[in-house]
Amino acid sequence: MAPGDTLPAMTPSFGQPVPPVTVVELAPGGAAVRLLDQTRLPAAEVYVELHERAAIVEAIRMLRVRGAPAIGVAGALGLAVLARRAADADTEFDATLEADAHALRHARPTAVNLAWAVDRVMRVGRRAGAHDSPQARASRMHDEACRIRDEDRAMCDAIGRHGATLLHDGMRILTHCNAGALATAGIGTALAPIYVAHAAGLALHVWADETRPLLQGARLTAWELQRAGVAVTVCTDGMAAALMRAGQVDLVLVGADRIAANGDVANKIGTYGVAVAARHHGIPFVVAAPRSTIDPATPTGDAIAIEQRDPDEVRTLHGVPLAPPTVRVHNPAFDVTPAPLVTAIVTDAGILHPPFDLSLPLP
Amino acid sequence: MAPGDTLPAMTPSFGQPVPPVTVVELAPGGAAVRLLDQTRLPAAEVYVELHERAAIVEAIRMLRVRGAPAIGVAGALGLAVLARRAADADTEFDATLEADAHALRHARPTAVNLAWAVDRVMRVGRRAGAHDSPQARASRMHDEACRIRDEDRAMCDAIGRHGATLLHDGMRILTHCNAGALATAGIGTALAPIYVAHAAGLALHVWADETRPLLQGARLTAWELQRAGVAVTVCTDGMAAALMRAGQVDLVLVGADRIAANGDVANKIGTYGVAVAARHHGIPFVVAAPRSTIDPATPTGDAIAIEQRDPDEVRTLHGVPLAPPTVRVHNPAFDVTPAPLVTAIVTDAGILHPPFDLSLPLP
Repeated sequence: MAPGDTLPAMTPSFGQPVPPVTVVELAPGGAAVRLLDQTRLPAAEVYVELHERAAIVEAIRMLRVRGAPAIGVAGALGLAVLARRAADADTEFDATLEADAHALRHARPTAVNLAWAVDRVMRVGRRAGAHDSPQARASRMHDEACRIRDEDRAMCDAIGRHGATLLHDGMRILTHCNAGALATAGIGTALAPIYVAHAAGLALHVWADETRPLLQGARLTAWELQRAGVAVTVCTDGMAAALMRAGQVDLVLVGADRIAANGDVANKIGTYGVAVAARHHGIPFVVAAPRSTIDPATPTGDAIAIEQRDPDEVRTLHGVPLAPPTVRVHNPAFDVTPAPLVTAIVTDAGILHPPFDLSLPLP
Repeated sequence: MAPGDTLPAMTPSFGQPVPPVTVVELAPGGAAVRLLDQTRLPAAEVYVELHERAAIVEAIRMLRVRGAPAIGVAGALGLAVLARRAADADTEFDATLEADAHALRHARPTAVNLAWAVDRVMRVGRRAGAHDSPQARASRMHDEACRIRDEDRAMCDAIGRHGATLLHDGMRILTHCNAGALATAGIGTALAPIYVAHAAGLALHVWADETRPLLQGARLTAWELQRAGVAVTVCTDGMAAALMRAGQVDLVLVGADRIAANGDVANKIGTYGVAVAARHHGIPFVVAAPRSTIDPATPTGDAIAIEQRDPDEVRTLHGVPLAPPTVRVHNPAFDVTPAPLVTAIVTDAGILHPPFDLSLPLP
């Protein structure tokens, strides 16, 4: 693998991009899942080692690990740890495993990657014959979980390689929310092209929208880019348009939670306003996401249900009131950017250009 | 005065709009300035009575009173209180008065309304002859300060009457920051048309952008509208565009910090993004501000210097880190919305329509 091999000829040097942080991994020996506790960022960088079902489920439920890809990897590695533990205990292996898988799968009910990863690890763990020991089954599950982790890393690298071809030296890139290393087991999705280009020696500057209400841009994107040595400046969401008018933004690069068959993109609330401002100023608006984000069964963005979240996410912060305690609040988790505002979609399979027709799965 | 007398015929009933809160006033007897301490909102509604120079200056400096009109009134009433105190003390009246005026004028160096109001009260306090007693001079200053307060209220009412002609029953209005009663001695500037129409019986719904970083929309606009019985919902700044796309916004109504001769409008950071989104969705973008906000000497918005504020306003909130402590932050106080995005400017002298030519003072 040669990240950057599709970069323009002006690229001054090449390097292998490495994730600025390891979000989720097996502890040495494979007896625990090691997680960066993202609820402690940016104030503290704390890693936790989780050996038991309750602790792993709690970590997923409480968003200590977040981002669909990273949650899937955490579920897969977590199940591998629990399978080995059940095999070592030498009692009720199948019953314990089923209970473990059920608890993990339901730690966050709407996270499709989580159920998908848990089911995939469970599938290889099925008893294959009379002499198929719990140890052998747990070992296969361990290997499958590591494959899921490695595939996630490779997916990130592929998005990075493809997306980096859109970047050039000195570019000022605005991003919204966090679709970075902190959301995956690798170098992220929307931030992957930035890491690839940075490792290739390009000087980039990233504007990180703080992304109210949950501040993923200020807390997470700023933290991981700073750690990777990429120049980053935080701005409030309301500043993005004025930055564009001032000629300070060359490209917008964001992730996606779901992409409809016509190219409509559901992503963190606030993304649509950025897309409108980018169009007004003639700035490319690029979405980067794994192929798995594309849902051919969703014809347009109108078919995507938008979750309304707890009003107190807007009304309070760490218990401090930001608004009158009983005031009505609008708090959708996502918005939909219609395909005509999307300049390109970067996937691990390549770059898609309009008009988008995603009604068949990508090769 | 008949607020609402320019309202459309469909108006079901008429009423006199009253400010939902008295932000700054003389205490009974005129021996103190009574202020709503806005630094305590929305958690607590606390009024302070200020008798001495140091306390009045501190209140202005620490933003216990804010909004250019309200600061001007606070300075005028404050000087009247101090003049009476100096007259009663019967020593060094002129020296004390000069020191009081100097301290007040410099409590916030960039607030032009403050210096203007203090100077105006000082002018009537000048010794007019041999028998002009300190008591008589202080009395004239008291009357002049009350005139400034009353003129501010009348200015708000006039903006309200003119602006209300643009509103209709059932309208959904989006506003940004706080240009309301809390920023004036009356019913506000951008919110004045809403109060007039509400008093006239129109059912309105206001979307209040929270307005990061200082959250004037969530803290102040939501508080005063809720108190006045106007339906209000808080949204984060990044939600405005998606609300427009969903057909939930009929009109944008914002204030202004300065209006250039060509109609370019400087206002709280985030206003420009709202204007761009409004244009994209074909929604009227209306600015409401007193004539005094128009600066014929500023040819275009490009000539308006934008103050950069403390990065920690973005990085922290009540001491809690929201971003890495050393990350770079962009924190301009204002942005400029170019005149072509402005549908109308409502002033106390009437409604201005494009093309704007404000190079001569309004009548």
